[in-house]
Amino acid sequence: MPVLSPRDPDFARRVAASFERQAFMRHIGAELVAVTPGACEIALPYRPELCQQHGFFHGGVVSTLADNVCGYAAFSLAGAEDSILTVEFKVNILSPGQGERLLARGQVVKAGRTLTISEARVYSVVEGQETLCAVALETLMPLADRADEPATGTKSAQAA
Amino acid sequence: MPVLSPRDPDFARRVAASFERQAFMRHIGAELVAVTPGACEIALPYRPELCQQHGFFHGGVVSTLADNVCGYAAFSLAGAEDSILTVEFKVNILSPGQGERLLARGQVVKAGRTLTISEARVYSVVEGQETLCAVALETLMPLADRADEPATGTKSAQAA
Amino acid sequence: MPVLSPRDPDFARRVAASFERQAFMRHIGAELVAVTPGACEIALPYRPELCQQHGFFHGGVVSTLADNVCGYAAFSLAGAEDSILTVEFKVNILSPGQGERLLARGQVVKAGRTLTISEARVYSVVEGQETLCAVALETLMPLADRADEPATGTKSAQAA
Amino acid sequence: MPVLSPRDPDFARRVAASFERQAFMRHIGAELVAVTPGACEIALPYRPELCQQHGFFHGGVVSTLADNVCGYAAFSLAGAEDSILTVEFKVNILSPGQGERLLARGQVVKAGRTLTISEARVYSVVEGQETLCAVALETLMPLADRADEPATGTKSAQAA
Repeated sequence: MPVLSPRDPDFARRVAASFERQAFMRHIGAELVAVTPGACEIALPYRPELCQQHGFFHGGVVSTLADNVCGYAAFSLAGAEDSILTVEFKVNILSPGQGERLLARGQVVKAGRTLTISEARVYSVVEGQETLCAVALETLMPLADRADEPATGTKSAQAA
Repeated sequence: MPVLSPRDPDFARRVAASFERQAFMRHIGAELVAVTPGACEIALPYRPELCQQHGFFHGGVVSTLADNVCGYAAFSLAGAEDSILTVEFKVNILSPGQGERLLARGQVVKAGRTLTISEARVYSVVEGQETLCAVALETLMPLADRADEPATGTKSAQAA
Repeated sequence: MPVLSPRDPDFARRVAASFERQAFMRHIGAELVAVTPGACEIALPYRPELCQQHGFFHGGVVSTLADNVCGYAAFSLAGAEDSILTVEFKVNILSPGQGERLLARGQVVKAGRTLTISEARVYSVVEGQETLCAVALETLMPLADRADEPATGTKSAQAA
Repeated sequence: MPVLSPRDPDFARRVAASFERQAFMRHIGAELVAVTPGACEIALPYRPELCQQHGFFHGGVVSTLADNVCGYAAFSLAGAEDSILTVEFKVNILSPGQGERLLARGQVVKAGRTLTISEARVYSVVEGQETLCAVALETLMPLADRADEPATGTKSAQAA
């Protein structure tokens, strides 16, 4: 993996603050575990409401984690005033998401000026043992000088 | 699009029953709108807890819908005793998911013996107007004689 | 599909000229069949040297066509002085590429300022009958004011 | 990466023989460099006829290599009488393919009973220095007891 240096020394706090603003992460109960330059780890404890019809974590939940660790891996390298958009991703589900929690790890493959490419692996943790559950490959677009948080005093389109 | 005929005449009820068993669909508030042979439509009304930091629907939510309409489009063509697994999918996010609801439509491209390929489009609905938000392409695997519901009297691994 | 209008009225000639400059298209014997705003069609007659071990068109050949029709569909909408880069694509091979020729059709799904998304379908033509062989979904990046042809008087890196 | 053991001790010879039968590999001048259980490396020396309009290796060529190393990585783990099909793949082009040759390395991520997942990286080699050019993620399907070579005495459909 490439050696990656953050443009914003305060990157870890910035990732954590953005994660806090993602209401959907709270809704599913995800926890930000670790952020290093170009890498990110998120954990998701088991909850029945995250499951599909066989009692496994829903594929959409697995994909959401893969997307988010790819995104925050990229965001950790962005400038202090930038934000990051998901352009697209592909995810392979290798085994059912199960156990006491899912663990997703994302890693930047290439941080470019206009696009950043990240990879992710998601693991099922069953009695402390990790089993590979999914692999993902994602394209992201840094948006320069577009703050990651909504402007103060405005409402989002949906909230109107 | 190919003309597709269901192997189980009771396919619509079977899809609806499976959808009901997906706890995660309830957790996000998704609604099954329509099922025809080889196609499926799901709607998701706006809720603040489904959003990311800018107040848009989270990319993981958009992807979850894309995955699910691809899956149920495939499931509508399966045998009465079969179930369906997501092998992998790719999704392109074309515009922010926003508005009063998302609308996802899935369509089988090819229903094979061992693999089924589906496509999806997800739309943002703003004041009744649809805008294309995402496009997806997915590979699914029908599992013959593997019931879509957990066996009665057993618990899933997670529920133990 | 969206109605798409070309920024360069001379788009068809520009696509044809670019296609002519792609040595690899000549090497495999591909023919540009049609270009309309936001769409492109390429044909590839059967040749034994394009095959894999079972006598079918090689998957790489099928993918090359899918990539190229996506790219030229996007290029047809670009400005007169722009060029187009493939960012990434996904292709599903649905059936073996076979018959007297392959026919690939690409279509722009969304032409954005920074990224364009295209779709492709590749068909096997057996005794005049088309069978769907592959489906692809691709992300491209328009490069403003970056000519599609190498500058006169310079050599490419490889030719040095 | 997982420890992978071949089911056929003669896997390396079998991969080499299959590679030899791929006419398209000869047509582009690709060379099988190395095969180990679950991994494969292919090199492709520069030739002008493999290029696009800017003198770089064509994206279809890069993708073909990525597809083939994923496939042969999977094939190295197959039974002596099996063959392997590409179901789908996604490839991200990270930088122009250039230099004296391309080098593609594939690795099995999971070898399943019905599906195998492989990853690939393709490098540009410029004056002996490798630069990452592309990353791919691929789904393959082992076909049990389907020989990798055409049956003796028959002609392929195309050869008729």
